[in-house]
Amino acid sequence: MAFKIGLLGLGTVGTATAEILLNPQKRHPLLQEIEIQRVGVRSPDKSRDVQLPPDIITTDLEAIVSDSSIDIVVELLGGLEPARSLILKAISHHKHVVTANKAVISRYGSEIFSAASQAGVYVLIEAAVGGGIPVIQPLKHSLSANRINRILGIVNGTTNYILTEMAAEGSDFADVLAEAQQLGYAEADPTADVDGFDAADKIVILAETAFGEQVELEDVHREGIGKVSALDIGYAERLGFAIKLLAIAQDSPATPDSLEVRVHPTLVPKDHPLASINGVNNAILVEGEPIGQVMFFGPGAGGGATASAVVSDIMNIAGILQTCGRTETPHPLLSTAPQQQCSVTPMEKLVTRFYARILCVDYPGVIGSLGTCFGRHDVSLESIVQIDFQNGLAEIVVVTHDVREGNFRSALDEIRNLDAINNVSIPSVLRVL
Amino acid sequence: MAFKIGLLGLGTVGTATAEILLNPQKRHPLLQEIEIQRVGVRSPDKSRDVQLPPDIITTDLEAIVSDSSIDIVVELLGGLEPARSLILKAISHHKHVVTANKAVISRYGSEIFSAASQAGVYVLIEAAVGGGIPVIQPLKHSLSANRINRILGIVNGTTNYILTEMAAEGSDFADVLAEAQQLGYAEADPTADVDGFDAADKIVILAETAFGEQVELEDVHREGIGKVSALDIGYAERLGFAIKLLAIAQDSPATPDSLEVRVHPTLVPKDHPLASINGVNNAILVEGEPIGQVMFFGPGAGGGATASAVVSDIMNIAGILQTCGRTETPHPLLSTAPQQQCSVTPMEKLVTRFYARILCVDYPGVIGSLGTCFGRHDVSLESIVQIDFQNGLAEIVVVTHDVREGNFRSALDEIRNLDAINNVSIPSVLRVL
Repeated sequence: MAFKIGLLGLGTVGTATAEILLNPQKRHPLLQEIEIQRVGVRSPDKSRDVQLPPDIITTDLEAIVSDSSIDIVVELLGGLEPARSLILKAISHHKHVVTANKAVISRYGSEIFSAASQAGVYVLIEAAVGGGIPVIQPLKHSLSANRINRILGIVNGTTNYILTEMAAEGSDFADVLAEAQQLGYAEADPTADVDGFDAADKIVILAETAFGEQVELEDVHREGIGKVSALDIGYAERLGFAIKLLAIAQDSPATPDSLEVRVHPTLVPKDHPLASINGVNNAILVEGEPIGQVMFFGPGAGGGATASAVVSDIMNIAGILQTCGRTETPHPLLSTAPQQQCSVTPMEKLVTRFYARILCVDYPGVIGSLGTCFGRHDVSLESIVQIDFQNGLAEIVVVTHDVREGNFRSALDEIRNLDAINNVSIPSVLRVL
Repeated sequence: MAFKIGLLGLGTVGTATAEILLNPQKRHPLLQEIEIQRVGVRSPDKSRDVQLPPDIITTDLEAIVSDSSIDIVVELLGGLEPARSLILKAISHHKHVVTANKAVISRYGSEIFSAASQAGVYVLIEAAVGGGIPVIQPLKHSLSANRINRILGIVNGTTNYILTEMAAEGSDFADVLAEAQQLGYAEADPTADVDGFDAADKIVILAETAFGEQVELEDVHREGIGKVSALDIGYAERLGFAIKLLAIAQDSPATPDSLEVRVHPTLVPKDHPLASINGVNNAILVEGEPIGQVMFFGPGAGGGATASAVVSDIMNIAGILQTCGRTETPHPLLSTAPQQQCSVTPMEKLVTRFYARILCVDYPGVIGSLGTCFGRHDVSLESIVQIDFQNGLAEIVVVTHDVREGNFRSALDEIRNLDAINNVSIPSVLRVL
């Protein structure tokens, strides 16, 4: 019995997916039961890196998702539309769906999984997060016995490459970005990566998978890496930290029954497993009870790696179909049950450590004035160090213990207006893991 | 419909497994369908950390594996017998089996999987390697589209702790071992860990899972860490390497259709992901096409972590039973097909880099004599450095390019007998990744 695939999109990932399916030798024997039935593309005459019979290629994507001979629709178009509509239409025609589309799943996951649940089909999304790294399936299967407390991810290769190079070369953001664009590690318009939009999509998907609750993308606090300076990376290094763009989802100690979901540059202690994840690699660290900490590391992008994840999802569906055909009961670890919307903790209630860099006119007692002001706002300091002079101003670096973010922000507001301190500016405020 | 578990063994992992099954709240809902039916123990009157109804506890292990009400037998006894016989008997009674028993699976995996295949049941073994780290299931499911080329594992926490401490403190093996024994990280008889027996069991299981071929435990080349000195760790550090006990299984470039399967201390370049895996942690790095490199990191031992893996295997079986009941066709990604025996490359044919530390009487031209001798045996050197003096002898450290192990060994034999060099000894020979 062969399982028939309708492939939507023949870009980098689509081509790599087709290549695996067309070359099953020395791979799992189940692959020999999987067949590409039709391929939907925008430009049928474009030259391709993969040999497909011309008669299976079409520009009529709608015809693929309603084709009664197709078992599994593989959506690799990217972007919101027509991807979302095609996925929903495939589901309504009782097709299983595999997609790498983080943008669609982070925004319309709930709608799509509800429809899939009603239609009795699977929608698998391993390739939407972390490229080839197995993380969605391990969360759903291997870690399913755990109560997950926290997920910390380096889920964007472009920003991790930029931060790694800034640390290695002591270079500034703009220079490294330009270099990354030349090397093809960053897009001409780098906004989606650099400003954390891509990471926000991914942490929504990870949070929903790990915690089983629906997270609204607009509830995710998002800061990019554009304001991280070579200076801060250097000071962080001296204090024993690397700076990483982390995507975080965790139980909120401050507000029970809520989650913290956020993306921001973070000072990570050097002995933490995420601190040594360098270059374009991704890593996702999961904390749960009773497992403790596990981490998944690998290539977060690239056609071949992402295709590995896509094809493994196809094989998971083919495996269950081969074993039991279409059943009334969906596989409880493969399907995604409809989820309740979760409440996301507002940032001012967050409890975390902070790093801040403060510039002001130097005078004897300035550190005392700052320390006293933090104390008034219940901000307990781990260290406060006058680290340098910049253009005649004292440069002071503060690292706090765990504090309520609202308190820390109001302390900073007061510092900006203290009579005792002149010419105050606070060029950097970063959270510390 | 509830799935009934027969639990064999109530030690650390058994207790932690029972605890998860008895406390399903806030875990995956499937856990509520799983019930502990009977528990087999050696000493029924021993006080336990887990509350179980006394009437389900028995010393009659045979009765559990033949109990017609039981769906899944969970073997957590450890050791070879009666574990192996009980697993086989459970299979003959058409029970699915979950086991954490690396010793049994590495020796009798082939017999057990053949019996399981004939009986139409699953035998799942996630907990046998890497404690709680998902690696068996990701290899079988998430990475199933790949052609796996190589597996590199730090799979023994005790030896990784010892090597990490030796590097951090500059201490010698015997001192750190004694400390590890005091802290409970090493057994009173540390042989299984320190001499690489535990790692050998695990690499057999990983190799069989990844390459789909049967590997004989006695074919695994095995060296422990007892001969690694603080001196070598220090020199390796200066050359840019950490020393790790690696378990390696890989396609053999030297002998096609063979695998290299080996356990030995290895110099790992500092920028390699395995170099920064410290303490009792484990990590398994998988290389495949098209995925590239992925790594799985986490706690390699401990009751709770290992129980997480045991229960996930139980849930995988319960999930497929809930979806399709007992079927004629086993799930192709969950079952293990009978395997052909693989040929393991003899060590003298291995092609690898080497590190050697040589002591001899110093004279002008000694490095030339050594270099010339290596050259005669086709051993190409990356560096040869007179690094120190020890008791009046020159201490010379050699790092080679990739060389055939047989050639390197015969060069060393010749060096030991060179007329030009006096008082030669070669206290350390280590492979380099």
